[in-house]
Amino acid sequence: MRMNLYHILGAKQFDRASLEDIFSLTKEMEQVEASGGSDRYKNKVMTTLFFEPSTRTRLSFESAMSRLGGKVIGTENASQFSSAIKGESLEDTIRIVSGYSDVIVMRHTDIGAAEKAAAVASVPIINAGDGAGEHPTQALLDIYTIEKELGQVDGLKIGMIGDLTYGRTVHSLSYLLANFNNVTIYYVAPENVLIPPYVKKYLEEKGIAYVETNDLEQVAANADVLYQTRIQKERFPSLEEYEKAQGKYVIDQSILDVMKEKAIILHPLPRAGEIAPEVDLDRRAAYFRQAQNGLYIRMSIIHKCFEKLGFVKNK
Amino acid sequence: MRMNLYHILGAKQFDRASLEDIFSLTKEMEQVEASGGSDRYKNKVMTTLFFEPSTRTRLSFESAMSRLGGKVIGTENASQFSSAIKGESLEDTIRIVSGYSDVIVMRHTDIGAAEKAAAVASVPIINAGDGAGEHPTQALLDIYTIEKELGQVDGLKIGMIGDLTYGRTVHSLSYLLANFNNVTIYYVAPENVLIPPYVKKYLEEKGIAYVETNDLEQVAANADVLYQTRIQKERFPSLEEYEKAQGKYVIDQSILDVMKEKAIILHPLPRAGEIAPEVDLDRRAAYFRQAQNGLYIRMSIIHKCFEKLGFVKNK
Amino acid sequence: MRMNLYHILGAKQFDRASLEDIFSLTKEMEQVEASGGSDRYKNKVMTTLFFEPSTRTRLSFESAMSRLGGKVIGTENASQFSSAIKGESLEDTIRIVSGYSDVIVMRHTDIGAAEKAAAVASVPIINAGDGAGEHPTQALLDIYTIEKELGQVDGLKIGMIGDLTYGRTVHSLSYLLANFNNVTIYYVAPENVLIPPYVKKYLEEKGIAYVETNDLEQVAANADVLYQTRIQKERFPSLEEYEKAQGKYVIDQSILDVMKEKAIILHPLPRAGEIAPEVDLDRRAAYFRQAQNGLYIRMSIIHKCFEKLGFVKNK
Repeated sequence: MRMNLYHILGAKQFDRASLEDIFSLTKEMEQVEASGGSDRYKNKVMTTLFFEPSTRTRLSFESAMSRLGGKVIGTENASQFSSAIKGESLEDTIRIVSGYSDVIVMRHTDIGAAEKAAAVASVPIINAGDGAGEHPTQALLDIYTIEKELGQVDGLKIGMIGDLTYGRTVHSLSYLLANFNNVTIYYVAPENVLIPPYVKKYLEEKGIAYVETNDLEQVAANADVLYQTRIQKERFPSLEEYEKAQGKYVIDQSILDVMKEKAIILHPLPRAGEIAPEVDLDRRAAYFRQAQNGLYIRMSIIHKCFEKLGFVKNK
Repeated sequence: MRMNLYHILGAKQFDRASLEDIFSLTKEMEQVEASGGSDRYKNKVMTTLFFEPSTRTRLSFESAMSRLGGKVIGTENASQFSSAIKGESLEDTIRIVSGYSDVIVMRHTDIGAAEKAAAVASVPIINAGDGAGEHPTQALLDIYTIEKELGQVDGLKIGMIGDLTYGRTVHSLSYLLANFNNVTIYYVAPENVLIPPYVKKYLEEKGIAYVETNDLEQVAANADVLYQTRIQKERFPSLEEYEKAQGKYVIDQSILDVMKEKAIILHPLPRAGEIAPEVDLDRRAAYFRQAQNGLYIRMSIIHKCFEKLGFVKNK
Repeated sequence: MRMNLYHILGAKQFDRASLEDIFSLTKEMEQVEASGGSDRYKNKVMTTLFFEPSTRTRLSFESAMSRLGGKVIGTENASQFSSAIKGESLEDTIRIVSGYSDVIVMRHTDIGAAEKAAAVASVPIINAGDGAGEHPTQALLDIYTIEKELGQVDGLKIGMIGDLTYGRTVHSLSYLLANFNNVTIYYVAPENVLIPPYVKKYLEEKGIAYVETNDLEQVAANADVLYQTRIQKERFPSLEEYEKAQGKYVIDQSILDVMKEKAIILHPLPRAGEIAPEVDLDRRAAYFRQAQNGLYIRMSIIHKCFEKLGFVKNK
């Protein structure tokens, strides 16, 4: 297996210095976007290989590439990926598509698919989600948003709410938070979708404080960040299990009432009822600003991939 | 609700002056296209959000954007629009995609979806069809074609044939015709798909003469424009209702024989048997020229959106 | 039927001189790609119309167009091609899409579809596969690869293995080989998917030697090129017929052991088990280099279409 240094596979590959580097570049990208984009990568081709549909993530990568002047080709639907239907291995697909592309953004249903792709790719692979595994660019934009909204990440209390088993964004976010000082994480989840032991183990190794609780109101009263997530029906083994988890923890006016004045509410989106409509009107609702930051983070990541700036730690 | 002045939502938003303005610009766009396109909007991004497939309309918008130098991202299939599957509201989708785009072209299954989108969008929304509602750029290209082919719209007799209930193009076209003088509309439809009362009411308010009849031959003998439409199987409540309507009014040699020498035959396409093959060879068959005009109209509309030229009346 | 000279419909349209011309241009295209692409066709629009999904072929054409600076619009899925669903004829679709495009790349399920399209198109049609018919750009890249790897095509012994009935690539490749001198073709196929009589008849007319045999090992020992193909499950009339053909001829270490030192193994890909994993590590495994050549051949073909260089024989 080749050990390329510029794939974006998982949140654990980033250290504090590389995060600061990316965020600094991301601020520049906000300026590039505001000034109408760039022609910098006009001869570059990004391929978006989505074996599982994710319109929002795909469009944000494609827009980011477009804002940098580049070209995009791709496929939006796994079930029609003809070569896969015909029995082709992921490795073969990647070997060939590498030859048509300067960077590949991949969404896959299987944990570890991005690592498998990177092992044979001749161009950078950006993991845009691998099953219940990781979604590193989401975690990067989450941390970027926290820092932009609150001025820093060190010392913050962060509540993560909802589906903490299947929700890969909270896993990646937890890993990234391990790079900061004096952070406390509160996990609030229905009992059938608790945060997995391997995430807790990672935090323990890194000396990050965390608390598991089912008292959302108390967490809301103390937290600087409430990170709400959707109960992802499509990832549950049965409807029965889904219904146990669904609707248990909703952010509504009663939660807003106890929250700190300077706190923020984040959500990776899409949402499906776990944030009440009245919350949108509150200044602390930062999830649409967060989604917008996704564009800037992805511009920054693409730029890094092309420049091969070595911001990624050797795993 | 914000009242943006540059969305393209329905035919009623255009007055005579704005139509003349658009058509004048469209003539320029024909020159731009003939001379090999432009780089003018090379840093702009159009997103095509199609919740219902419509390859022809989507490709014409994407080509129009490309001819103006712009970039296109998008999704071609509602049923795979993952965020929608996951229960996301249209408003959330639009809020987020706005941040990735300079203009959004949307096709949706529900009447009024374009208005809902425009209410929350931070970029122009172009309605590319909302269920049985409207399809304003189709109506613009229809009128543009009539004027280009026949020199004027005032004073013309226009027959509309086929599915006048579910066929949104005839609704939008009727609204646009209300801006012209001394126009007479003939509606020829199977009795289960008649022109709806609210369209007739609008024409009455505007003082536009119309006639409902089932005598296609007589209409053909008098009309300057025959606007044929497809009986849209997919919009009928039952197969039985569809079969009552299907095949009743076909334009064939017998119709050509009674038509005026200078008349034209239009069709929004696709067609499925309601125009006999021999008609294609007749000079009066203008539907392929009409389809081509769609490209120029859409170039013109996109240009207008970016220039925010205020050609749209406040509703 | 108009007889345009610049469509790419089938392998039979190429003669020796036109092949040499294309290959010479393809070598230039390798340089263009290596130097980071070109802006040459920045105002041109390619439409990829895929009535049958084929991600690999589509992406290679889209990348080729992008490398030449051009823009791409398209549809990746036949079953959602809305106009087709609505009963539109292929001819109508092509007439209209011609007006939005500078070149159309089409994949269709029906033999002869590309010819039908070319008959009404006002821009070049490139056949990217028509059912069990032809796939001429695949054959061009196959021959290009043979010449690049082995220095020449004249005088070579070429074994074609697998599904020779439904596998259109071996048909197109056989037709192209008829342009070379002193070539011998060995056909090795399960008895229910033999090479069709019309291919053999063509070779006989052109004086090309061929042998039908079921002794893969002997062919491997003599051949300069082993062209392996997948047994295409989706093209068989029944599962029973498929299972008779599947797994009969596999290239593995035992075949490598008898092959000549300078021979090569080709495969149009995707593959599904008919090449054993250990073969990938052998220098004679040329199929990934072959896939990469597809990009250069398609850049060359697109360039030819735009330049209308008349490299295609009148059929």
